[in-house]
Amino acid sequence: MWLIGARGSVATTTVAGAAALAAGLHPPTGMVTETPPFAGSGLPPLDGLVFGGHDTHACPLPKRAEALAEGGVLPHGLPAAVRAELAAADAAIRPGGPQSGDTRSDEELIADFAADLTAFVREHGLARAVVVNVASTEPAPGPGDDRLPPSSLYAAAALRAGCPYVNFTPSTGLHHPALAGPAAASGLPYAGRDGKTGQTLLRSVLAPMFLQRALTVRAWSGSNLLGGGDGAALADPAAAAAKNAGKERVLADTLGTVPEGEVHIDDVPALGDWKTAWDHIAFDGFLGSRMILQTIWQGCDSALAAPLVLDLARLAAAAHAAGMSGPVPGLGFYFKDPDDGPSGLSEQWRDLLTLAERLGADG
Amino acid sequence: MWLIGARGSVATTTVAGAAALAAGLHPPTGMVTETPPFAGSGLPPLDGLVFGGHDTHACPLPKRAEALAEGGVLPHGLPAAVRAELAAADAAIRPGGPQSGDTRSDEELIADFAADLTAFVREHGLARAVVVNVASTEPAPGPGDDRLPPSSLYAAAALRAGCPYVNFTPSTGLHHPALAGPAAASGLPYAGRDGKTGQTLLRSVLAPMFLQRALTVRAWSGSNLLGGGDGAALADPAAAAAKNAGKERVLADTLGTVPEGEVHIDDVPALGDWKTAWDHIAFDGFLGSRMILQTIWQGCDSALAAPLVLDLARLAAAAHAAGMSGPVPGLGFYFKDPDDGPSGLSEQWRDLLTLAERLGADG
Amino acid sequence: MWLIGARGSVATTTVAGAAALAAGLHPPTGMVTETPPFAGSGLPPLDGLVFGGHDTHACPLPKRAEALAEGGVLPHGLPAAVRAELAAADAAIRPGGPQSGDTRSDEELIADFAADLTAFVREHGLARAVVVNVASTEPAPGPGDDRLPPSSLYAAAALRAGCPYVNFTPSTGLHHPALAGPAAASGLPYAGRDGKTGQTLLRSVLAPMFLQRALTVRAWSGSNLLGGGDGAALADPAAAAAKNAGKERVLADTLGTVPEGEVHIDDVPALGDWKTAWDHIAFDGFLGSRMILQTIWQGCDSALAAPLVLDLARLAAAAHAAGMSGPVPGLGFYFKDPDDGPSGLSEQWRDLLTLAERLGADG
Amino acid sequence: MWLIGARGSVATTTVAGAAALAAGLHPPTGMVTETPPFAGSGLPPLDGLVFGGHDTHACPLPKRAEALAEGGVLPHGLPAAVRAELAAADAAIRPGGPQSGDTRSDEELIADFAADLTAFVREHGLARAVVVNVASTEPAPGPGDDRLPPSSLYAAAALRAGCPYVNFTPSTGLHHPALAGPAAASGLPYAGRDGKTGQTLLRSVLAPMFLQRALTVRAWSGSNLLGGGDGAALADPAAAAAKNAGKERVLADTLGTVPEGEVHIDDVPALGDWKTAWDHIAFDGFLGSRMILQTIWQGCDSALAAPLVLDLARLAAAAHAAGMSGPVPGLGFYFKDPDDGPSGLSEQWRDLLTLAERLGADG
Repeated sequence: MWLIGARGSVATTTVAGAAALAAGLHPPTGMVTETPPFAGSGLPPLDGLVFGGHDTHACPLPKRAEALAEGGVLPHGLPAAVRAELAAADAAIRPGGPQSGDTRSDEELIADFAADLTAFVREHGLARAVVVNVASTEPAPGPGDDRLPPSSLYAAAALRAGCPYVNFTPSTGLHHPALAGPAAASGLPYAGRDGKTGQTLLRSVLAPMFLQRALTVRAWSGSNLLGGGDGAALADPAAAAAKNAGKERVLADTLGTVPEGEVHIDDVPALGDWKTAWDHIAFDGFLGSRMILQTIWQGCDSALAAPLVLDLARLAAAAHAAGMSGPVPGLGFYFKDPDDGPSGLSEQWRDLLTLAERLGADG
Repeated sequence: MWLIGARGSVATTTVAGAAALAAGLHPPTGMVTETPPFAGSGLPPLDGLVFGGHDTHACPLPKRAEALAEGGVLPHGLPAAVRAELAAADAAIRPGGPQSGDTRSDEELIADFAADLTAFVREHGLARAVVVNVASTEPAPGPGDDRLPPSSLYAAAALRAGCPYVNFTPSTGLHHPALAGPAAASGLPYAGRDGKTGQTLLRSVLAPMFLQRALTVRAWSGSNLLGGGDGAALADPAAAAAKNAGKERVLADTLGTVPEGEVHIDDVPALGDWKTAWDHIAFDGFLGSRMILQTIWQGCDSALAAPLVLDLARLAAAAHAAGMSGPVPGLGFYFKDPDDGPSGLSEQWRDLLTLAERLGADG
Repeated sequence: MWLIGARGSVATTTVAGAAALAAGLHPPTGMVTETPPFAGSGLPPLDGLVFGGHDTHACPLPKRAEALAEGGVLPHGLPAAVRAELAAADAAIRPGGPQSGDTRSDEELIADFAADLTAFVREHGLARAVVVNVASTEPAPGPGDDRLPPSSLYAAAALRAGCPYVNFTPSTGLHHPALAGPAAASGLPYAGRDGKTGQTLLRSVLAPMFLQRALTVRAWSGSNLLGGGDGAALADPAAAAAKNAGKERVLADTLGTVPEGEVHIDDVPALGDWKTAWDHIAFDGFLGSRMILQTIWQGCDSALAAPLVLDLARLAAAAHAAGMSGPVPGLGFYFKDPDDGPSGLSEQWRDLLTLAERLGADG
Repeated sequence: MWLIGARGSVATTTVAGAAALAAGLHPPTGMVTETPPFAGSGLPPLDGLVFGGHDTHACPLPKRAEALAEGGVLPHGLPAAVRAELAAADAAIRPGGPQSGDTRSDEELIADFAADLTAFVREHGLARAVVVNVASTEPAPGPGDDRLPPSSLYAAAALRAGCPYVNFTPSTGLHHPALAGPAAASGLPYAGRDGKTGQTLLRSVLAPMFLQRALTVRAWSGSNLLGGGDGAALADPAAAAAKNAGKERVLADTLGTVPEGEVHIDDVPALGDWKTAWDHIAFDGFLGSRMILQTIWQGCDSALAAPLVLDLARLAAAAHAAGMSGPVPGLGFYFKDPDDGPSGLSEQWRDLLTLAERLGADG
C-alpha cells in the first residue's frame, strides 16, 4: 500500500491502525471489509499489508503518531505499541514533489515517482502495490495551467508502474484530461474520488429519505468546523470549492434539483483533527407546512477515513488480482463523487455487496 | 375512508388535505402514492374518496380545522375553502365508544360499529370502506383485563363489516389475541402499526448507515416535546411505553443489539401540534474513537401523518380490490412496528415499489 | 417617529405592532419600556405615536403587512385590523434617495430630507420627531468615496431638522467623520448602532459567563441563515462585513481577546423573515479539558427588532425632552456596537435602568 | 480540605488538579479565585492545601486518577506526575458511614467523624479544615425517617469539630431541621448547596436575558445524558428529583413563574464522566410570534466542579479566618439552590466580588 501524503493524519492513522488490528489490539470498528459479507472475497489479510508512500514533509511517522495521540485521534499507548511498524513504514517513504525550486519536468517527476513504486514492490517482494491519495486537498487547477497538478503526477506514476489507484481526496488525480487515454490503456482498476466520511455520508442517507417520502427540500445549508492540516488546506477557497462540489453532488443527484443553501468550511485550529458539521434542512410537508431537520456531526476525520482507506486498498488489490480494469464498480459507497452508480447510500451498499460476491466468485 | 378518531388533528388534516388536493389548491407534497412509481397501480383517485368515521368528541370538523389553521397546522384560508367537504365528512361521523356509563358489551359495541360501517358504504354507494385508526394512543392493556381495548373493538367491527383495516397508532387494534382467528378467517387485507413520521423515520435511515459502515453504536438517546392531543395522551406513562416500544424496535432490528439510552416524550402544550425530537447517538469509530451525531427534527405530526394515512387507505383499498388478504406486504415503509419485512427504510422502499408493481399488474 | 426604510419588514412590523398595542389587541411582549421600571420615566404613550418615513420602494404598507402575515411574521388578521393606521403611515412616507439617475448633490438631498421632516412635524402638530434608521444594511464605504452614504445623508437631515436620531443598523449613519462636528454642535441626543436582536444578544450574556467562570474560550464560530430582504442585502460581502464587525466586537470587548472562528451570513430565501443562528463555542475547562457549547436560535428578526425600535424611539424622545445631548447613556443594552459602556448585557441592563430613573427624575 | 466522597471523580480531580496547579503544570483555568479580583482577599495559597476525607469505597486515589485519565477527564500523564500528592491524600482518607451492618447510632457516627476531623487538623498542624460534600447525590429523605441522612451526619460532625462546611451536592447536609439550631449556635460559616456547573449555569444567564428583554418564556425543557457514578446515582428517581428541584428553582426565581417543560436525567454509561445537556426554550416575541432557543452543552462534570470546589474551600476558609458565621454572603454564584441572594449569574458575580473585597479588607 503506497500512500500519497504518507506522513499526514490519515496516512499515519491508517498505518498505526493496520498494525494495531493485525496485533489484535483493537476490534476492526469502521472497517467494512472486516464484516461477514466480505469474508469470502479473497481480500489481502490485514497482517500482510506493507506500507510506503510519498510525502514532502520530513516529520517521521512515530512522531506524527505521538502528536495524534496527544490530540485524541489515536489511543494513548498505541504509538508506542506499534512503533516498529511505524518506523518500518517511515523508512519506505520517499520525498514527493515538485518541491519549491524543483526543476524537474512533469515527465521526469512521473518517472521518478514510478521508479519509487517499482523499487518498493521489488524490495519487499510484493504481489502488487495499490496507490492511495490521502494528501491534503489541492486547489482546483485553473484554466491555462499547462502543468499537471501534483495529484495527477502521482496518478500517472501509478499507471506507469502498473499499480491500481485510489483517490480518497477531491484533488484531480486521474480525472485530468491528459490521463484519460493512459488510464484506459493501462488495463488497471481504479477508484475515486473524495472519501465520504461525515457530512456527505449523512446526506447520502437523508436525501433519499426526503425523496422517498415525497417531502420537498427547499434549502440545505451546512457549516463545517475543523482544524488540523485539513482545516488549513480547506481555508483556501479554491480547495474548499473542490471539496464542496462533491458535497453538493449527492444532493443534486438524489433530489434531482439543487436546493438553496451554502456549505462553509472553516479552519478552527483549536478543534485539531476533530470536525463538527452542522446541517440545516428546510423542507415542506403536506399542504406546504414548513419543517426543519438539523444534524450535528462530531467526528474525527482521520479515524473515519483510515478504515475506509484500508477497505479501498484491499478491494482495489483484489480487483487487480481478479483482472478487473477501469473504474471498479460498486465503490460509490465510499465516495462523494463516484465515477458512476446510484447516489443513495443504501443502493451503493447493495452494489458493494455485489462486488464482494463477484470478487469471491472470481477468486 | 372510515377514520377512528375522526375529529382528531390527523383526521381533520387528512380530510381537509384530500379536499384541497382534489381541488388543486396544493401540490401533493408528502403523498408517496402521488409520485410516478404509483401511477399505474390502480389506486382510487383522490377526488373519489368519501370520508366518515367514529369519534367520541363533538367538536365539528370545520371548527377543528379552524383551530388547526390558528395553530399553523393548516394553511390560513384552507378551512374556509374546503368547508363543504369538511361538513360532509362531519355529517358522516358516528359516536364512538365505549363512552363513560356505556352499558353495552364488547359484542354489542362491535355490532353497532359494524352497522355504522355498513350503513356508510350503502348510503354513499361505495365500492368499499377502509378503516384507519388515527385515534389517540391508548394505554397498553394490562394483564387480566378481560375487555377488549377500544382500538380492538373498532378493528373487530372492520372485520365484521368486511373492511380492510389500517392501524396508524401503537394501540392494540388487530394485534389482540382474541382477534387473531377472525383476522385470519376474514380474507381481508390489513396493515399496521404505528405510523413512522419523524424520529423513527430518521432512525430507520441512520441505523442502517451505522451498520453498513461498521460503526458501533453505543448509546442512542431521544427526547420528544409535543403538545396537542398527542402530547397529553402520551404524558400517560402507559401510552408512552406503547409508543416507545416501536421506536426502539427499529434500532434493535437494525443494529442487532439494543444500545444504551432512553426515549422521553414530554407533553409541552405551548408547542401545540408541532413536535421537536432530539436524538443523541454516541458511536465508536476506528480504534475506539468516540464520535457523536445529534439530530433535531421540528415537524408537525398531523401534517406528516395525513398524507401517509391517505397513502395507506388507497393502498389498502387497491389490495382489497386485488383480492389480497392478511398483512399487506411492502408497507413496512410506513410503520414503526410492521408485521414483517426489513427494518431499514431503503429496503422498505424497495418492497413498497414491488407492491406498487404488483397492484398494477393485478389491475 | 420617522423611519428610514419605512416600507421594510422592521418598519412595517413596528407600525402595525404599535397600532395593535394601542388598540389592546396584543400584550406588549418584547417591549422593555412597557415593563414596570419604565412606568415613571415620562415616555410618550404608545397611542400618541405618529409614523412617517423615507423609502425608495413603492409597495404600500397595508400590502407589505399582508405579505408579512402570509410569512408568519405578523398574526393573521392583524393587517386588516390596523389597516387604517397602516394607510395613515403610508401616506406620510416620502421618497428617499439618492435613486438611480438622481442628480441632486449631497447637500440638496440633505436639505430635501430635512424639509420632509419639518413638514411632517408641522402637519401633524408634533412635539418632536425621532428619526430611526431601519433600512437594509449598506456596504461599508470604501476609501476615497467622497459622497456621503445614504444612511449619513438621512442622519445629517435629522441633525438639520433638530430631530433625535437612532441608528438600528450597522450602516454608517452619524458615524461619518464629516458628521462628527455637526452632531456635537447640534445639542441633540442620539443612539446607535446595530440593534442586538438574536445571536449577538446571546453572545452578550454567554461571553460574560465564560469570563466570570474563568473558562477559556478558544473558538467561537457562527452561522446565520436568513431570507427576506435582510438575507439578500447581507449576501453582499461588504454588507456582511459591516454586520459581522459588530458581532465580533462583543466578544473582543468581553473576553479581552478575539477567539478563533468565523461568522457566516447566508441568504436562504426559503426561510423568509425567519432566521436561524447556530453558534459553536469551544472552550477549555480545568486542566485543559475540552468542552463545547452550541446554541441554535430560531427567531423572526422583524418581530425581535420592532419592539426595540419602539423602545428606542420613546427613550430618545424622552431624552430630547429632558434636554440631553450626545450619545444617550445607558442604551448599550440595545446595540451590538454601542458608543460606549459595558459589553455584558447585565451591566447594560443596569445602565438602562439608571437612564429610566434619570428620565423620571427629570420629568 | 476535608472531602466527603473523597474517592469520587470530583474529589480525585480536585486533589490531582490542586497538585498540578501548585506544581505549575497547568494554568488555573476554571478557578475563579485565581483571577485578579481575588488577589488581595487573603485566600489560602493553593500549594498550602492539605487533603483528606471520608469515603466508603476502597479504591485508592492514584488508581482512581488513572481511570479518570483513561476516560479523558484528567490529562494523560497527570496521575503519574502527582502520584505522591494523590497517595498522601489517600492516606488521610477515613472510612465513611454508616456502612451496611453498621450498628452505630447517629450520635456515635457524628462523634467518630468529628474525631477523624480533629485528628486530621492536629496531625497536619493545620490552621483549620473546611469540610466539602462532593459525594453522590442521596435520595431526598422521606417523611417519618427518624435517622439523619449521611450527608447530615457529616455536616453535624463538621459543626462539632468547628469546621466550616460547604455542600456542593443537592443532598440534605446542613439543611436538616435537626441541624438548624446547632448550625446557628456554632458561629461557623457555611455555604451551599448544589454546585452550578453546566445546564443550570447556562439557565442563570439565559433566564435573565428573556426577562430583561420582556420576552415571554412559555416552555423550558431539558434532557441530560451522563454516565459515571453521577449518572448511575441520578438514575434513582428520588435522587433525580432532588437534583431537578435546584434546576427549576433558578427559572422560577428569575422568571417569576414556572414555565412548562420537564427535565430528564438519563444514565448513559457509554458517556463516562462527560455530560450532554440539551435545553429547548419556547418563547414568545412581539405580537405573539413563536421563537425557539436550543442549547447543547457538552462538558465534563468533574472538570467543571473541581475548580469551584477549590474556590469554595478557599473562600470558606478565609471567611472562617475573618470571623464570619452563618451562610457566607455572595456565594450564590456557585450554587443552584443558594441560601439567599439574587438568581441571575451577573448579580451573583457582583456579590461575589463584594465578598472578595470584604475578605481583603478584613485580612
